[in-house]
Amino acid sequence: MNQTFDKNLEKYARLIVETGVNVTEGHTIVLQIAVNQAKLARLIVKEAYDRGAAQVIVKWSDDELLRQNVQNMSVENLAEVPSYMIDETHDWLEKGASRISVISSDPDALAGLDSDKIGAYQQHDAKHLFDLRRATQANKVSWTVVAAADGPWAAKVFPELATEEEQVTALWDQIFKTTRVYEENPVVAWKEHEAILGKKSDMLNKEQFDSLHYTAPGTDLIVGLPENHIWVSAGSLNARGEKFTANMPTEEVFTAPDCHRTNGYVSSTKPLSYAGTIIEGMKWTFKDGEVVDVTAEKGEEVIKTLVASDSGSKRLGEVALVSDPSPISQSGIVFFNTLFDENASNHLAIGAAYAHNIEGGTVMSEEELMAHGINRSQKHVDFMIGSAQMSVDGIRKDGTVVPIFKNGDWA
Amino acid sequence: MNQTFDKNLEKYARLIVETGVNVTEGHTIVLQIAVNQAKLARLIVKEAYDRGAAQVIVKWSDDELLRQNVQNMSVENLAEVPSYMIDETHDWLEKGASRISVISSDPDALAGLDSDKIGAYQQHDAKHLFDLRRATQANKVSWTVVAAADGPWAAKVFPELATEEEQVTALWDQIFKTTRVYEENPVVAWKEHEAILGKKSDMLNKEQFDSLHYTAPGTDLIVGLPENHIWVSAGSLNARGEKFTANMPTEEVFTAPDCHRTNGYVSSTKPLSYAGTIIEGMKWTFKDGEVVDVTAEKGEEVIKTLVASDSGSKRLGEVALVSDPSPISQSGIVFFNTLFDENASNHLAIGAAYAHNIEGGTVMSEEELMAHGINRSQKHVDFMIGSAQMSVDGIRKDGTVVPIFKNGDWA
Repeated sequence: MNQTFDKNLEKYARLIVETGVNVTEGHTIVLQIAVNQAKLARLIVKEAYDRGAAQVIVKWSDDELLRQNVQNMSVENLAEVPSYMIDETHDWLEKGASRISVISSDPDALAGLDSDKIGAYQQHDAKHLFDLRRATQANKVSWTVVAAADGPWAAKVFPELATEEEQVTALWDQIFKTTRVYEENPVVAWKEHEAILGKKSDMLNKEQFDSLHYTAPGTDLIVGLPENHIWVSAGSLNARGEKFTANMPTEEVFTAPDCHRTNGYVSSTKPLSYAGTIIEGMKWTFKDGEVVDVTAEKGEEVIKTLVASDSGSKRLGEVALVSDPSPISQSGIVFFNTLFDENASNHLAIGAAYAHNIEGGTVMSEEELMAHGINRSQKHVDFMIGSAQMSVDGIRKDGTVVPIFKNGDWA
Repeated sequence: MNQTFDKNLEKYARLIVETGVNVTEGHTIVLQIAVNQAKLARLIVKEAYDRGAAQVIVKWSDDELLRQNVQNMSVENLAEVPSYMIDETHDWLEKGASRISVISSDPDALAGLDSDKIGAYQQHDAKHLFDLRRATQANKVSWTVVAAADGPWAAKVFPELATEEEQVTALWDQIFKTTRVYEENPVVAWKEHEAILGKKSDMLNKEQFDSLHYTAPGTDLIVGLPENHIWVSAGSLNARGEKFTANMPTEEVFTAPDCHRTNGYVSSTKPLSYAGTIIEGMKWTFKDGEVVDVTAEKGEEVIKTLVASDSGSKRLGEVALVSDPSPISQSGIVFFNTLFDENASNHLAIGAAYAHNIEGGTVMSEEELMAHGINRSQKHVDFMIGSAQMSVDGIRKDGTVVPIFKNGDWA
C-alpha cells in the first residue's frame, strides 16, 4: 500500500463523513468497523471531528472472534441479550446518532458451523439491534453502509490473483471506482450521480403503477405496489431534515411492495452472502404475498431458517430496479456482498420494508404500516434476480401495460 | 515477524490464559486489548475456548481514537458515564468474569492535551470502572495485567534503534524474556518463580513489622503497617478459591500500609506514565499519612490533579519491595510502563489498597477497611522509589530495627 492508496483512503473517509452521513456541528456518530480496518476508522473519526462532531463512538468487530464465539458458545449464551446492550442502542437513538457501517467481512465467515448456533447468533443480533434497525429503516437518523477490502473477502472475489496483497488491492480498486473516489471531487461526483438516478424515481413516482410484472428464464412474478408508494434513490432525509446517502455505492431505485400481493415464482441470479454463508441458486414461489416454497442449490437450510424467523420474514419488503448495464454489473465481478451485488442487478428483499417508501410512513405506527401493506419484520435480506434476459412491465390500475425494463435495461 | 515469533506469541497466549487467569470449564473472560494486537487477541480467545470458557468478551481500544476523543469532545461529554456502561461491568461481575488486560499504549498517548480534558476522561474512567476495580482489588475475580509491544511505546523504550520494526522486536524480546516465554514450559517456570518470591513474603509475614524505614538520597520515609497485614507475591486466590497471577512479569512482594502513619519525604527514581503523560522527578512529603506536598520536574500538574481527586488519593495504598538486582532492573531499560518499571524497583502506590493485604479484608465493608488503615480511593497509581542506594529497615513493635534491604538488595 503506497502513498496514492493513503490519499485515496483519505478521500474515501471524507466522502463517507460528508456524503454518507453528512456530519455537521454537534452530531454523535456510531462507527461499526472491523479491527483490520483501524487505519480507515481513524481517518473517519478524524474527519468527523474536523466537521464538528460532538462524539464518535467506535464499535469494533472481528470475523475470527465472531466465528470462535459461534463455534464455542452454547446456543443459550449466544442468544442471550443483556439489557445493557439494548440500553446502549437507545442511548444512541436519544442522541440522534448517525450510523456508519463499514462492511469488510468474509462472506463465508461462519461457513460450516452448526446452523442452530448461527440461528442463535442471528436471533441475538436481531433482538439487540431491533429498535436501532427500526429507526434506521424509518430514516429517523442518518446512516450509511460502505465497504472496505480485507483478505478473506478479496480472496473470494479475485481467486485468480496470486497473492493476498494483489487481491486486496484489486478489491480496493473496485471500491474506490464504484464510490467515485478516483474523481477529483468525489462529493461533487456523487451529486451528479444522484441527479441521474433521481430522474428515474421521479418518473416512477408519477406513474404510480399498481404492480410490476417480472419475466426472465426461471422467473414469472407479479409484485403489487401499495397506494402512495414512493420510489427512492441515493439521497435520503433523516427526521431532522438532513440529507444522507444510505449506501455507497448505489445504483438502485427502490420502493416498498404491498406485502400481500406477490404471486408467481422468481429465481436468484447471483450468490447471496447471509449469516456468514454463501447461498446460491434460490428459487422462490409466492402466493398472495407469502413464500409458499423456497429452495436453493447451496445454503438452503440457512435460507429456510431465515424465512421461518418471524411473520414478516416470509413476505417481501423491497423491490429495486438496477439496469444490467450498471457499472458494477458491467465489471462482471461477483462480489459475494449485497452492497455491491444488489447494485449490479434488479433485486427484491425478504423482510421489513422501509417506512419512507410510502407517503407519511415515517410517522405511522407499526399497525398502520402493516395496514398499508408495508411489511414488518426483524429481518431485511436482499437477493438478486436481474439479468440481461429480464423484462419488467409496469401495470397501471386500468390494466395498461408499460414496459419499464427490456433485456435488463431501462426501456 | 517470523515463525519463531508466532510460536512465542502462542506460548505467551497460553501462559496468559493458564497462569494469568487460570481459565477452566464454564468461565467467562473479559479481554481488554488494543486493535493493533488483534493477532494476540485471537490467540488468547482461542486458548480460552480450548480450556472450556463459556464466553470470551473482547473490549477493543485504540490510542489514537482515545487521543482524538480527549482532544475533540467537551469536558461534559468526556466525563459522562451512561448507566448502561456501568450495568455492563455489573453483568461481568455477576458472571464472575475473569479480566485479562493487555497493555500496549504509548506512555505519551495524551501528551500535550488540555489537563481539564484529561481529568474529565480520568473521571469518566474511574466512575465507569469503580465497582469492577473494587472487586478486582479485593480479588473477587481472577485478573491479570500483561503487556504487548506496539510501535509508539517501543520507540520510547528503544529510541537508539533505527526502525519501528527493530524497536517492536526488541520490546517483544523483553516481554517474552521477563514473562519466561523463552523457557521450554513457561507455566512450570512461573511456578518455580512463585516459590522463590513466596519465601520472601513468608518471612515478612512472620515478622509483622510495625513500620518500614526507607533511606536513600532524597528519601527518608517511615511507612506504618497495619496489624495483621499480609505480604503477597505472584500467585493470588479469587473468591472461588481459584489461583491466578495478577501481573506478568512480577518480581514484587507487597502489602498495604496503614494509611494514617506515613511520615517523611520520598523521591521517585524512574519516570511514571500516568493518564497518557510521562511524569518525572517527583518529590513527595507526607505527614500522618497525608501528602502535604508533591512536586515534579515534568508532569507536575497531572500528579497534583491525581492527588486532589478524592479523599484517598492523598494517602498510600501499597508498599512493594523489589530487589534492585531483579532481572528487569538489571536490563537497565526504562520501560515507561508501570507493569515493568515497578518490577525493577521498590515502589509505593497512591490511592486504594488491596483488601487481600489484610487478614479478613476481602469480606470487610468499606468502613471496616478504612478503620483498619486500608486506604479507599478510586485511584491506584504506583510510583518507583528504589535504587542501588536504598536501605529499608523493618521496625518491630518493641523498636528493634531489622535491616530488610541494604544497597538496594535483600539484606
